[in-house]
Amino acid sequence: MTLRVTVWNEARHEKISTAVQSVYPHGMHTVIAQALREKGLDVRTATLDELEHGLTVEVLDNTDVLIWWGHMAHHDVSDEIVSRVYARVLNGMGLIVLHSGHFSKIFRKLMGTSCDLKWREIGEKERLWVVNPSHPIATGIGEYIELEHEEMYGEHFDIPTPDQLVFISWFAGGEVFRSGCCYYRGCGKVFYFRPGHETYPTYYQPSVQQVIYNACLWAATEGAGMTYGHRPHPIEHILES
Amino acid sequence: MTLRVTVWNEARHEKISTAVQSVYPHGMHTVIAQALREKGLDVRTATLDELEHGLTVEVLDNTDVLIWWGHMAHHDVSDEIVSRVYARVLNGMGLIVLHSGHFSKIFRKLMGTSCDLKWREIGEKERLWVVNPSHPIATGIGEYIELEHEEMYGEHFDIPTPDQLVFISWFAGGEVFRSGCCYYRGCGKVFYFRPGHETYPTYYQPSVQQVIYNACLWAATEGAGMTYGHRPHPIEHILES
Amino acid sequence: MTLRVTVWNEARHEKISTAVQSVYPHGMHTVIAQALREKGLDVRTATLDELEHGLTVEVLDNTDVLIWWGHMAHHDVSDEIVSRVYARVLNGMGLIVLHSGHFSKIFRKLMGTSCDLKWREIGEKERLWVVNPSHPIATGIGEYIELEHEEMYGEHFDIPTPDQLVFISWFAGGEVFRSGCCYYRGCGKVFYFRPGHETYPTYYQPSVQQVIYNACLWAATEGAGMTYGHRPHPIEHILES
Amino acid sequence: MTLRVTVWNEARHEKISTAVQSVYPHGMHTVIAQALREKGLDVRTATLDELEHGLTVEVLDNTDVLIWWGHMAHHDVSDEIVSRVYARVLNGMGLIVLHSGHFSKIFRKLMGTSCDLKWREIGEKERLWVVNPSHPIATGIGEYIELEHEEMYGEHFDIPTPDQLVFISWFAGGEVFRSGCCYYRGCGKVFYFRPGHETYPTYYQPSVQQVIYNACLWAATEGAGMTYGHRPHPIEHILES
Repeated sequence: MTLRVTVWNEARHEKISTAVQSVYPHGMHTVIAQALREKGLDVRTATLDELEHGLTVEVLDNTDVLIWWGHMAHHDVSDEIVSRVYARVLNGMGLIVLHSGHFSKIFRKLMGTSCDLKWREIGEKERLWVVNPSHPIATGIGEYIELEHEEMYGEHFDIPTPDQLVFISWFAGGEVFRSGCCYYRGCGKVFYFRPGHETYPTYYQPSVQQVIYNACLWAATEGAGMTYGHRPHPIEHILES
Repeated sequence: MTLRVTVWNEARHEKISTAVQSVYPHGMHTVIAQALREKGLDVRTATLDELEHGLTVEVLDNTDVLIWWGHMAHHDVSDEIVSRVYARVLNGMGLIVLHSGHFSKIFRKLMGTSCDLKWREIGEKERLWVVNPSHPIATGIGEYIELEHEEMYGEHFDIPTPDQLVFISWFAGGEVFRSGCCYYRGCGKVFYFRPGHETYPTYYQPSVQQVIYNACLWAATEGAGMTYGHRPHPIEHILES
Repeated sequence: MTLRVTVWNEARHEKISTAVQSVYPHGMHTVIAQALREKGLDVRTATLDELEHGLTVEVLDNTDVLIWWGHMAHHDVSDEIVSRVYARVLNGMGLIVLHSGHFSKIFRKLMGTSCDLKWREIGEKERLWVVNPSHPIATGIGEYIELEHEEMYGEHFDIPTPDQLVFISWFAGGEVFRSGCCYYRGCGKVFYFRPGHETYPTYYQPSVQQVIYNACLWAATEGAGMTYGHRPHPIEHILES
Repeated sequence: MTLRVTVWNEARHEKISTAVQSVYPHGMHTVIAQALREKGLDVRTATLDELEHGLTVEVLDNTDVLIWWGHMAHHDVSDEIVSRVYARVLNGMGLIVLHSGHFSKIFRKLMGTSCDLKWREIGEKERLWVVNPSHPIATGIGEYIELEHEEMYGEHFDIPTPDQLVFISWFAGGEVFRSGCCYYRGCGKVFYFRPGHETYPTYYQPSVQQVIYNACLWAATEGAGMTYGHRPHPIEHILES
C-alpha cells in the first residue's frame, strides 16, 4: 500500500512576512508535500488555522506518517489535538518533527524534556554530517549535506539520548547540534530533523527532501498492537508440571 | 558532602490495609529510609498527605536524589508539585521511581509514553537477572536477585528504550520485564526499579536495599548548569581569520 | 531489486547425528532458504565444507544479507574467510547470526566481547517477548513467540549493549535472555537471533521464519560508502571570510 | 581504596621528535600521571619499550583503570599483551583510550569495527561541546572545552554507536567528531577521548585533565564476576510445583 503522509504546517509566517512569502509563496508544507508526491507517496496537507487544525480523527486514522512544522504559534495548538496526535503516535503512526517544531507541544510531550537549545539567526553555513551510514535515513546522502545559509541551533539540546543518531550539524559560528534523531515511542516512531528556517530555501534542496522521504519510510510501521493490563493466568504448563 | 535523599511515599495503603500494615507498620518509606541511613546517606521522608506532599521548594532544593513510591492515589498528586519535581530533575536532581510508580504523573511526564504494562498478583517467584555487570547499580548484586513472592509486571512495558538496562526480570508465570532502567533527562537522571508490591516484604531484602543505595549514588550529579537561548555572536576567531 | 540472501550453515551435525537428520534431513539451511524464497527473496545457500566455505568474493559481492548458523566447528572456519565476511559487513552487507553462532569467529570479531552465556539442554519451553513493537523486525509477530522445546541460553550474555533490543526470552527453567539484538557496524548491520537448536524443529515455525525474513529486510542497506583518511583542506569559506 | 591507574604511552615520538620533546620533555604519560596524582589517584606509568610493554600480569591485576596513548607504533604492541589487556577489561578493568589510540589493536579489538576516521593536521581550533550534562564525565566542565590548536578528526568515525556520548567536537575547518564515547564491555568499561596530538600542549590543559580524571572514576568498577557455561539444573520450584 502506498504510504500515506500528512504534512502539517503552522503556516503563520507565510501569512504575515513578505520575506517568508518570497521564499515559500504557497507555504512550506506545499513544497515538502510536492517533493514527497514526486517520490511516489500519497500526501495531503493540513494547517493550524483549519478546523481541528486539519487533524481530524479521520485524517489521523488515515495517516501513516505525520510531518510537523511549527514556530511562532505553538501555544495556539489545542491540547485536545495534541493528545489526539500523541495517542496516534503511541498507536503506531510515524511523526517527523522539523526545525522549530522542537518546541511544539507534541514533541515535548513525547520527549519528556524541555527540548531547549541555543540559537542564532545570521544565515551561517551548516553541514550535516552522517554519523550512521548504515541507517536507512542516510540512504543516498553521501558524507554530508551542506546548507549555505541556515539558522544555527546549538548544544546542549535538551532531548533524551536519541535511540539512533543519524546526523550531527556543524555551524560556521562555532556550534554543533544533533540534527537527525530517531526515537521509538510505544508502537510508533519519531524523527527530529533540524534544518528548515522559514526564510531560507532549505526545503527546496534535493538532499533535504531525500532525508524527509527516507524518514517517512523509516517511520512507517505496521502497528504491532500491544495489549496491557491484568493477566490473571500464569502460563499453564508451569502450574501443571 | 553526604548525599541527601528524600524518600517519598504515597502512604495510603498503609493507612487502610491491615495486610500492608502487617508488613510495613510504619510505611514502606521508613524501611527504605532506614536502610539508606545505615549505609551512610542523609535521608528524610515525605508523604502525599503532608502539606505540599512534603515536597516544598526548600526540601527539593536540598535533595540530591528523590525516591518515589505511589500506587492508588497518583491522581491526588497535584500538578503543581509534579511540575516542581520535574523542573528539579531537569535541573540535576536524581529520581528513583519504584514499582507501581511507573504510572505516576512524574514518571510518565519524564518518559513521554504511557508506561503501561501487564500485571498479575498471585505472589509468584521473580528473578532479576543482571544484564550489565559493569554498571554501578549492579555493584555487589551477583548474578541475580531472587524474590520469593512478588506481583508480576510483564512486557510490553511502554517506556522509551532505556539509556542503560541493568536488570531483566523473570516471572514464574511466563513473563519477562525490563526491571532496572536508567535514563538521562536534562541535567538529571532517572532510575526505574520494578520490585516492591506493598503486601510483600521486598524492601527488607538486603539485595533490594543495595540496588536502591547503588541507584542513589548513580543518580546524584553535580548539575552541570547548561544555558539556553539566543547566542547572537559566532566564534570570533572564525570571522577574524 | 530483489534482496539477495545467502544462508550459510556449518552443516556438520546433519552429517553425523541421526537425531538432527530426522528433524532437518537436508540441513537447516535448506529449510531457512525455502522459507525466504517463498516470501520472495533471492536465496542461495553455502556450507562449511564447500570450497572457500562457499563464500567466495563473488558470492559475497552478490549477497545483500548473509545468514550464519554454526556450532561444533567454529574453529574450522578459516581466518581468511572470516576477514572477508567482516570487511563485507563493514562495507554494507547485512549479517544475521543464529543461535549457537554467538560463538562464531565472525560474531565475536564484530562484537568485541566474549559472547559467552549460560546454557542448558533439556528441551524446556521458551517465550520470546516483543519489547520494541515499533521495530520492523517485530512486524507481524504479536506479543510473543512461543517455542515448545528449545535449548536454554541465559544471561549474562556477554555482548555489547544492543543498539536495538527487539526480543527478550523467558525460559521455564528460570532464566531470561536478550534474544533479538540489532547492531550497526560500519556501513552494515548485524542481527543476532537466539532460537534454533539443531535437534528441535524451530526453523519450521512460521513466526521464526517471519522474524528471519523481517531481519533480512532490516539488515539490507544501500552501503553509503564513507571515505576515510587525510583531508588536507579545511572548508574554504571559513578561511576566506 | 584509592583508585589505581596505569598510564601507558607508546612514548616513541618523544624519543625522535624535537617538536614533541619541546612540549612533553618527559613524555605525555608523565604529564597525565602527574595531573591524576594531584587529584588523589594512585598512578604508575608504563611504556612500549619496557619489558612486556610494562604491562605484566601483576601490573594489570593491580590496575583499576588503564590509560592508553599510541600512534606510530601500534603494530609493535605484541598480540599477547593485547590479549592480556583485553581479558582484563572484560574482567572489570577500566580502559581510557586517548586520541590516536583509536587505531590501537586493543581499541579495535574491543570495538569490532575499523575505527577509521578523517584527519587534518593544521593546528586548527577545536571545541568539545557537552551533549550529556548529567554524565559524570562532564562534571565540572561547563558547556564546552576549547582547544586553541589541535589535529582535526572528522566523521564518519567508524565505531559502534557509543553507549553514552558525552562530547561532540567542532573544528574550525568544517568537521564534527564524536569525541567522548563510553562503552560497556563485559564487566569493564571503555572511554574514548579524542584530544591529545603529540605536538600540542593539550594534556596540560586543566579541563582536559579534569575529563581524564572524571573518566577514571567512571571507568572503575568492582568487577561483578559473572559466570558462564553449562547450567544443568532448572529452577527447582518450577519442577516441584
